[in-house]
Amino acid sequence: MRSINIAAGQLGPIARNETRTEVVARLSALMREAQSAGCDLIIYPELALTTFFPRWYMEDQAEIDCFFEREMPGPQTRPLFDLAGELGIGFCLGYAELALEDGRLHRYNSSILVDKSGRIVAKYRKVHLPGHAEHEPWRKFQHLEKRYFEPGAGFGVVDAFGGVIGMAICNDRRWSETYRVMGLQGVEVVLIGYNTPVHNPPAPEHDELSLFHNQLVMQAGAYQNGTWVVGVAKAGIEEGVDQIGGSCIIAPSGEVAAACTTRGDEIARACCDLDLCNSYKRTTFNFDVHRQPHAYRLIVERKGRHLMADGTAVPSA
Amino acid sequence: MRSINIAAGQLGPIARNETRTEVVARLSALMREAQSAGCDLIIYPELALTTFFPRWYMEDQAEIDCFFEREMPGPQTRPLFDLAGELGIGFCLGYAELALEDGRLHRYNSSILVDKSGRIVAKYRKVHLPGHAEHEPWRKFQHLEKRYFEPGAGFGVVDAFGGVIGMAICNDRRWSETYRVMGLQGVEVVLIGYNTPVHNPPAPEHDELSLFHNQLVMQAGAYQNGTWVVGVAKAGIEEGVDQIGGSCIIAPSGEVAAACTTRGDEIARACCDLDLCNSYKRTTFNFDVHRQPHAYRLIVERKGRHLMADGTAVPSA
Repeated sequence: MRSINIAAGQLGPIARNETRTEVVARLSALMREAQSAGCDLIIYPELALTTFFPRWYMEDQAEIDCFFEREMPGPQTRPLFDLAGELGIGFCLGYAELALEDGRLHRYNSSILVDKSGRIVAKYRKVHLPGHAEHEPWRKFQHLEKRYFEPGAGFGVVDAFGGVIGMAICNDRRWSETYRVMGLQGVEVVLIGYNTPVHNPPAPEHDELSLFHNQLVMQAGAYQNGTWVVGVAKAGIEEGVDQIGGSCIIAPSGEVAAACTTRGDEIARACCDLDLCNSYKRTTFNFDVHRQPHAYRLIVERKGRHLMADGTAVPSA
Repeated sequence: MRSINIAAGQLGPIARNETRTEVVARLSALMREAQSAGCDLIIYPELALTTFFPRWYMEDQAEIDCFFEREMPGPQTRPLFDLAGELGIGFCLGYAELALEDGRLHRYNSSILVDKSGRIVAKYRKVHLPGHAEHEPWRKFQHLEKRYFEPGAGFGVVDAFGGVIGMAICNDRRWSETYRVMGLQGVEVVLIGYNTPVHNPPAPEHDELSLFHNQLVMQAGAYQNGTWVVGVAKAGIEEGVDQIGGSCIIAPSGEVAAACTTRGDEIARACCDLDLCNSYKRTTFNFDVHRQPHAYRLIVERKGRHLMADGTAVPSA
């Protein structure tokens, strides 16, 4: 049996004035707990090193950049990498990435996969940035990911931990394309961290369905691609904003194999049998036999109902 | 409020020796019941005029073609069209279509949408044919859709009943691309008939999850595209094969608004407020704002992990 013993390492809220060192201590405690439970890998949430700062409108770039990491590991995060190597456990960590590329600074909402020796083996940059780019004072709180980050290039997979691993972040999980693009590369475990407010200012009528939608999209993505999905929240009331928990590990059947039940620092774990994926990948979802790409062209030709992928208007019929 | 009062017109089993006239009488009874309940539209299952014949391996093309319709309406189905016009109710009907095109006979697993005057306003031919093309005697029963049908061209929508309507058939509902291609055309109601055996011979370990998977994929398709989804079964034990029921009407929230609770001829109905779609289409799933087609190219470039869309092998990395 090929299997990975995985821990979903949910975090409770992180206050704005909490230091990286304090957060790393919390991450380290969860890592020790996961390792004691026999886990090979622990998944932390999106932007796991700080409070969820896109909830505030800020104009001072220096203030914004305080939430970003210029190197990974850096002085404050290295202890987590060292501990991973010492304990022999891998981790997946979300953080705000400040990268110098082509002589210019770029900012991404990123996650990395670190192996049991403490070495980074994959990096992912969030593709589906939710929210808005301009200050919208009518909202109780902002969601300025479109302002503070640029979107990543796409979804890859990596051979690690004896399986095929992919990453996605938060809003990515609501988009079926996320799972499919990785499914087409044979993904067996999709790792997803998130920060999801219970309240969605543009559509408050969805608030009571937040946990249902969270689970629905990950269950469908798992089943339709024959993959494990691990969803990990930063949960609880953070700087006055209530964020859902619902961290869980979902089997390729779409069934929930393990779930957190608090909204604080907590681990849920499952032994993920990677061969279960084949039960779906070789039957109902044998893509090589059953997919019909000739019928899917609109998915890449159009951005939406009104815009083509290149941003021009959809021609009227 | 723009709304369509919709009935899911589930059928119990149809015996192999049951005539079209007998079946049309059952469809008519459901139509009368739906119209009495104030419905604008009734949805019937896939291949609603006969037993689900792909469960048998047949070599005699004349025997196979007995299950197909050469014209629609034909002499035996015209009474249903006449009744629809008389009652002022529309319907969606699945059937096996024998079509003469380009001087050659083609066979499709099709459905049509008929308006309140009894006029056909749209036709759809199933894209995702499940099962296999050759006789596999080890199976308890066959699933020879890949033998008896050729796949359709794609997914369209039509303006009808005051909304934007699309159709899909059975296995199509398991594929996220089905909903997305229609979602990109602004679909507000997706109509889906199905015949789904409880037992899946290549993967019997999924049998107990049949109803869960049926609902999961339609709920995700509804939510992720902000559309109503109507799923309608031919249910019960048909010629010895147990088929799931689970017919239901799903709101754009992904919530089940109405569901059948038997496995026989039965109606479930819901008044579908089309403006509810906008609650999703204009916020979380505002495609024009949030989709990232640059990251989706693999969806059309590849058929599966091993094959490109044109059937050649995926180049090794």
